[in-house]
Formats: sequence, C-alpha cells, structure tokens
Amino acid sequence: MAKYCFGIDIGGTTVKCGLFETNGTLVEKWEIPTHKKNGGEQILPDVAETIEKKLKEKGISKEEVAGIGVGVPGPVRHNKLPFAVNLGWGEMDIGETLGGLTGLPVRAGNDANVAALGEMWKGGAEGKQSVIVVTLGTGVGGGIIIDGHIVEGSHGAGGEIGHAHVEDDIHDPCGCGNFGCLEQVASATGIARLAREEYAKKDPKEKTILEIEGVTAKTVFDAYKKGDALAERVVNRFAKYLGTTLASFSVVVDPEVIVLGGGVSKAGDVLVDIVSRYFRAVAFPAIKQTPIVLAQLGNDAGIYGSARLALD
Amino acid sequence: MAKYCFGIDIGGTTVKCGLFETNGTLVEKWEIPTHKKNGGEQILPDVAETIEKKLKEKGISKEEVAGIGVGVPGPVRHNKLPFAVNLGWGEMDIGETLGGLTGLPVRAGNDANVAALGEMWKGGAEGKQSVIVVTLGTGVGGGIIIDGHIVEGSHGAGGEIGHAHVEDDIHDPCGCGNFGCLEQVASATGIARLAREEYAKKDPKEKTILEIEGVTAKTVFDAYKKGDALAERVVNRFAKYLGTTLASFSVVVDPEVIVLGGGVSKAGDVLVDIVSRYFRAVAFPAIKQTPIVLAQLGNDAGIYGSARLALD
Repeated sequence: MAKYCFGIDIGGTTVKCGLFETNGTLVEKWEIPTHKKNGGEQILPDVAETIEKKLKEKGISKEEVAGIGVGVPGPVRHNKLPFAVNLGWGEMDIGETLGGLTGLPVRAGNDANVAALGEMWKGGAEGKQSVIVVTLGTGVGGGIIIDGHIVEGSHGAGGEIGHAHVEDDIHDPCGCGNFGCLEQVASATGIARLAREEYAKKDPKEKTILEIEGVTAKTVFDAYKKGDALAERVVNRFAKYLGTTLASFSVVVDPEVIVLGGGVSKAGDVLVDIVSRYFRAVAFPAIKQTPIVLAQLGNDAGIYGSARLALD
Repeated sequence: MAKYCFGIDIGGTTVKCGLFETNGTLVEKWEIPTHKKNGGEQILPDVAETIEKKLKEKGISKEEVAGIGVGVPGPVRHNKLPFAVNLGWGEMDIGETLGGLTGLPVRAGNDANVAALGEMWKGGAEGKQSVIVVTLGTGVGGGIIIDGHIVEGSHGAGGEIGHAHVEDDIHDPCGCGNFGCLEQVASATGIARLAREEYAKKDPKEKTILEIEGVTAKTVFDAYKKGDALAERVVNRFAKYLGTTLASFSVVVDPEVIVLGGGVSKAGDVLVDIVSRYFRAVAFPAIKQTPIVLAQLGNDAGIYGSARLALD
C-alpha cells in the first residue's frame, strides 16, 4: 500500500515541491528554480532529479509512492498540453515524459485547477466534492471541481472563470484579447481600475482617505474597512460583478461551497460578506445559502492539489 | 448480456415511455396518463404496470433488461427528490419505489437534465461527452453533461441555467422569485416580452410587419426572416443575452458542443447563426469555435435520455 505521493507546482520562476503522505499530511516542502532555457527542456529532468534525491534522503522506495501530480501554467488535458508560454514549452506530454524519467505514475493538471483541488482536499472546501474556487490575484483564475474531479474542459479551458464577459463598457483589451472580462474588474488590478474610475467620477468636494496615486486592492479594502465612502462604492461595484457572476456559475454547477483565494482574499471576512450579499441577491433560490468561504492554503494550494491529483 | 432498457419521462399530464435496445435503437414508444390524485401515489405503480405489460407483449424476460431510467420534473439527486410539485409528490425515492415494484435497476434524473443526456446520446450532440443543452420553451431549461454524466448539483439545481441573472432592469419577478433571469428574456415568453418593449420604444412612424397583439417568439422570428427592422432589434437583444450567458457558462464547462432545443429552436439555422455571433463576440479565445447546434430529438429527448441513464 503506497504511503506517499509528490505534489509538484511548476511556475515560471520556481518549482514548488511537496512530499505528502497519501492521507494529505505534508511531510516536507521545498523549491527548485525553473530553468526555462532551450524551450524549458530541463524542467522535467530537474523535477525527476529532485524527487529521486528526496526519496534517497528519506529512505523511501518507489513501491511506497502512489505517484506524482504536476500543476503547470497551461491548458492541460489528459496529462498533455499544447503549450505553456511561461515555461517556454511547446507541446508536452507530461505524463509520458516525467513518468519515463521516474518510473512513477504521473498525473498533470492546469495550475489553477490543481490549486482548486488542493483547497477541496485540505483547504477551505475540505470534505466537499463539488466546489468553485476563484483566485483573485493579478488576474482572476479558478477551478471547478465536480464530484471530486477537476473539470478540464474540451480545450483545457474549464475553470477559466476570469474570462466570463461581465461589462460591455470596457474598451481596452483583457490579456485574453476580449473586452469586459471578469478579470478586468475583479482582480487586484481590476479593483485598482474601478478605484481610478470612481475617483475620476467623484464630486471634487468629496473627501476620501484613498490615495489614488498607487492605489491597490489592499489600499481600497483598507479604506473600505475604515468606512470610506469612495472605497465603499468601489468594493460594491467589484462585489456586484463577482457575486452576480458566481451566481450564474452556480446554476451550472450547483456547488457545495465557493472558495475565494488569491491576494485579494487577504481582505478577509469583509470580502466574503460583501460578495455573499451580491451573490444571494440574484442566486437561484435553492442555492442562495451556498457558503462562500476563504481559501486556506495560500501558495501551498498547488502542491496540495497536485499531490491529490496523483491519487486520482 | 442485457439487450433492452426503458426510458420513462414523467410529465404533469402524460408519462412518455420508450422501450430501447441498449445500443440506442428505439423499439417502441407509447404514453400513459399521469394520475396525480392522492399525492400522485399511483404514478410509479402505473409505470411498473405498463413496463410489465410491454415485457409480456414482446416476450422479453427481465434478465434481458439493463434497467429503467426515469425523468421527473423536480430536483433529483441520487435517484431521490424532495418534491415534484407538478406530480403532487412530496419526498420520493424513485429508485427504491420503482425498483421494488419491478425488480429492475432504476436510475432517476431531473427531466431537463435527462433530455440533455438524450441529445448527447442520439441527438444534436451525438458522440460527444461534454455538452451544454439549453431548452428555449415557455421557460428556459437545460442540462450540463460533463464526461458523459449529468451534473446534478449539490441541491439538484445543476443545469438550472434559465435562472442566471442577466438583466438588472426587470422589475417583475421570474417564476423562481428573482428578477432579471435569463428565462425572462430568452424563453418564448421572454422574446414576446422583448418584442413588446421594443414596440413601445419604436418611432411611431416606423413600419413593422409584426402584429404586437398576440406576438409570439414564432411571429418574431418569422418577421426577422423577412427582414423586419423591429424584429431584428428584438432577436438581437435576445441573442445577446443568450450568447453572452452561454459564453460565461463555457468558461466553466468548456463543452464540446452547445445544443439549442425547445419550441424557439424551430426558428432553425437563423437562431444558431445569431446566437453564435454573440457567443463568439465575447467567448474566451480557446472556445470561440465551440459549435452551437440544434437539438434533434424534440419531445423524445426525455425518453432517450432516461433510457441512457438506465445504462449508467
């Protein structure tokens, strides 16, 4: 009976690695640099090497390892992906390549989807099987888990929830090329955009503690917590976009719980409260009470989720 | 090896029944009345009786039957449901009750979800595994199929896509109690609503062939096909609501195909064309080319889908 598994979260700068017991206990975590030169050809061999070293160091045999899960920034489907720009990769069969190097079973997933699986396993949605996870960072990412499994989607675009269209009145493009994506109004940068818009519209006599120069999602939420009226308008606009969109997603998925993560989620309970208010205002009656909670694993969600994927 | 299965679609007036071969060939279909008296206590015994009679008539033994699938108008989860208003039912364990009466394996699902499964099996999405089906009738229903399985949802509300919030400026309630649901602008009745709104707004000098008295989705699409400018505005508003919402759903599910069914879909290719145009305008790049097609099974989708469910 396999006792261990590895969770590997490959990012553009570092590869986060975790050795886990199959019950979800994190034994040890560490990082190695991501070597992107020559089309990222060294990345998976480096991963294989660090795993071999860790096994030797801990005196663990391969028979004791259920497998390796890998999260990567790209549209993974069936353990392969057509490209991963941030790693320099073209087409890559992660399962075959890393499996061949290590002799261990390998399962791969998109990094945001895998992080969602981590929150389901040992984070904000622990014990649940159907979950929407939204990551509010520089962009808006996320993952959809149904009956314990990631929704990969037929083009590997399942859970690309930052790119729901929510606003006709945005005329500069999103990173994806479209106009008016959720990401443009609900990410950290989106919240700063809304703050600049509201600041430009405000009555010159209105006082605000918000410094518009260098405004961030954090300074907006700090001002909101202090009762600043401008910040309140910004946070309400943000929360209406996000809460309404989550309500729409919820008539598709009807999840047990919705998890909010990423840098913006450091705002804490006030974030959950205001998003829940807009969610409930328009959510289908049967799902109005669906709990919205904070993510718990922070930057470790990826290694937890990829370790969980290895057990699938 | 079982050769047959039954598909049973229980509606408020009639129960549609189908005897199928397990490869999806419809052997025979028929209907019995839905007896709703005494809390609908007779409905499942009537179903059991008609199945027993059909088996005898055809000389089929129960060993040859894989099972019975049942579609019902209510929030089914794990073969049970808490209520089905249109049938007079309170809490009902369909699997246990009908299984007990027939001695055959029984699987139950929500009628709209089951119809979606039918379209996946032998209709507009044949050969696909991940599908969004939208039924544009008196209301807007639908079903989400991922990897060949219905998304039931944690409250049995998976696929309740008619109740996505799409319009803040509607002040009369939807059947669900909310305001501004997709159903209020994209069902047959919703299209008639939009027609009345656009008619009221039009310049009195503008001519239209649309008879606003007794306007229906059909008369709107008929006028649209003849190039009527008012009908064009109505159809464009409808298609923008629907296409944009389907694009949002598609970043959750990333389906292989989207199927449009229900009475409104009789408008045919012009419906597909205009909805596709608004879908593509805002859909995430990887999914812009997701085909949107017409449903093919009409009122038989329910018996096909429930028969398919019996094979799950």
